[in-house]
Amino acid sequence: MALEHGGRLGAAAKRYGIAMDAWLDLSTGINPDAWPVPALPPELWQRLPEDDDGLLEAALSFYVTSHLLPVAGSQAAIQMLPRLRKPCRVSMAATSYAEHERAWQQLGYQVSHDEDLLQSDADVVVVVNPNNPTGRLYGVTELLELHERLVQRSGLLVVDEAFMDATPEFSLASYCPMGGLVVLRSLGKFFGLAGARAGFVLAPENILQPLAELLGPWPIATPARHVAALALRDTAWQEKTRATLLVASLRLSDMLARHGFAPSGGTCSFHWVKCDDASIVHQTLAKQGILIRLFDAPASLRFGLPYGEKNWARLDAALAQVSRSDSYAPSPFGRGLR
Amino acid sequence: MALEHGGRLGAAAKRYGIAMDAWLDLSTGINPDAWPVPALPPELWQRLPEDDDGLLEAALSFYVTSHLLPVAGSQAAIQMLPRLRKPCRVSMAATSYAEHERAWQQLGYQVSHDEDLLQSDADVVVVVNPNNPTGRLYGVTELLELHERLVQRSGLLVVDEAFMDATPEFSLASYCPMGGLVVLRSLGKFFGLAGARAGFVLAPENILQPLAELLGPWPIATPARHVAALALRDTAWQEKTRATLLVASLRLSDMLARHGFAPSGGTCSFHWVKCDDASIVHQTLAKQGILIRLFDAPASLRFGLPYGEKNWARLDAALAQVSRSDSYAPSPFGRGLR
Repeated sequence: MALEHGGRLGAAAKRYGIAMDAWLDLSTGINPDAWPVPALPPELWQRLPEDDDGLLEAALSFYVTSHLLPVAGSQAAIQMLPRLRKPCRVSMAATSYAEHERAWQQLGYQVSHDEDLLQSDADVVVVVNPNNPTGRLYGVTELLELHERLVQRSGLLVVDEAFMDATPEFSLASYCPMGGLVVLRSLGKFFGLAGARAGFVLAPENILQPLAELLGPWPIATPARHVAALALRDTAWQEKTRATLLVASLRLSDMLARHGFAPSGGTCSFHWVKCDDASIVHQTLAKQGILIRLFDAPASLRFGLPYGEKNWARLDAALAQVSRSDSYAPSPFGRGLR
Repeated sequence: MALEHGGRLGAAAKRYGIAMDAWLDLSTGINPDAWPVPALPPELWQRLPEDDDGLLEAALSFYVTSHLLPVAGSQAAIQMLPRLRKPCRVSMAATSYAEHERAWQQLGYQVSHDEDLLQSDADVVVVVNPNNPTGRLYGVTELLELHERLVQRSGLLVVDEAFMDATPEFSLASYCPMGGLVVLRSLGKFFGLAGARAGFVLAPENILQPLAELLGPWPIATPARHVAALALRDTAWQEKTRATLLVASLRLSDMLARHGFAPSGGTCSFHWVKCDDASIVHQTLAKQGILIRLFDAPASLRFGLPYGEKNWARLDAALAQVSRSDSYAPSPFGRGLR
């Protein structure tokens, strides 16, 4: 059974009778101001991908590591990681990116939800960091300690860093390769290249090698490899974007709070709002052509970042329709990221 | 262990000290006059692939079938098909596309090579049709009879039609879905879009559904889906290309024969030449910057189609250097495709 994901704009367009291009799609955490893809040499479409096309070097340098495997988005690795382990106990957050749980359960693993993953006694611990959608952000030291305990019992720590590019100082990438540690990265969110299906697995050779065997040759389109290599090398764009996303994220958080939807958590790419009537708010915004992501348990909403003043104003106006806080006054202390 | 494939131009460039763009690469069976990819809307790189983007309809219409699964090139399906079967005996041609054998063996299946696949008593028969590199082409009726016998013992017929687009009248695509039949198609060869990593599995739901689960969501890049849908709908280009490839294939066959390399088989996309000194011929051509595909067992060469008069002349001149037939006279009867 396929899980529902952000980005299913086509379905929403049909359901609400609003044309695709009339929507403000905030249902994903994808950076709306994506890395600008230049015109590509058409022959890229014709050639099989080659390992020595420069992508590897660009990625090794960007992630500051020595071993990685390019994959068709981190999803491809999420699918296959469970096939590398013998039956064991797996732990992850109850509210997190659901494809992890699906992948392990599909292969018959027992998946438990630990309140505090750092204290988990499971064999495999999957941490989405920062977590999607709750925004919970683990520190490097506490994750390294968790990893150390896991290694002592031949366990595995999987850290999905899909939303880490805006805050690289929290990444475990540069600690890779280490036995018993897998870090997943992707160009989908920060770079805004979700359509490219390009991601990376950072892990020791004893994990990368069987993973490569499982996935087979040429999982990534040649033009996508080309685009990914260019984006990973564009440090000027990356620096500018880290600043832009941080500012936009704070602005969104403030806007949501102003309308009585103070986020319970978030990252530089989205905010997460718990509210009992989430489905009603979701529907009300959808009727105005604004798509956000609805979660059932706990009842909550995820808002991606608008792009362009017109869209900020549109969201502001739409939120005013569902506002539950006419008397909001901004905090005199300002606000930080949660 | 990764298999060597055509298309490893980078390695040849290093080995022979000839710059990448100075090569005439005939090492693949990829149509060198590929479907012309237009400039793409850059936002395709940003959006996650959506099922309802029109690719499915374009493919169903092109393959004249009702059930298929888009995959990241037929290779993705080749990797995963063995995971859908219980241990059993698998049969395929000794000289064929090697990734099939690798995929089944990797999972511990016993793979045998039947002289005549049509008489195989294995549980799973894999037929590459037309076969790569030998060019052996099976007819629809004999394959349907083989399928019928396989179904009677709960077997499976896998037909890899990677090189079928030039001769659709031999395809089993329009017979799908049928229980116990899997047909693999791809846009890599005829359409020349090997870099797009776009292919299709035609099969009944009881195969497509677990295959989709295995591969997970979003295996194909959004721009690749867009390009594939356009190419599949471009019937005018397809008709023209069928004619062009046939003419080019006959021309190549004649040229090879003229230099004493009469093909032992071929398709509209390549010709296959058995010769004891294949590795010497391969090396001699490589030193002149012409890359063809070398096979060890049996010692043989595969020549893809040159594109443009300059390249035809370049191959002709290079073949003259290794020619073993100064006294060749064209047959008065003309020649057909073998």
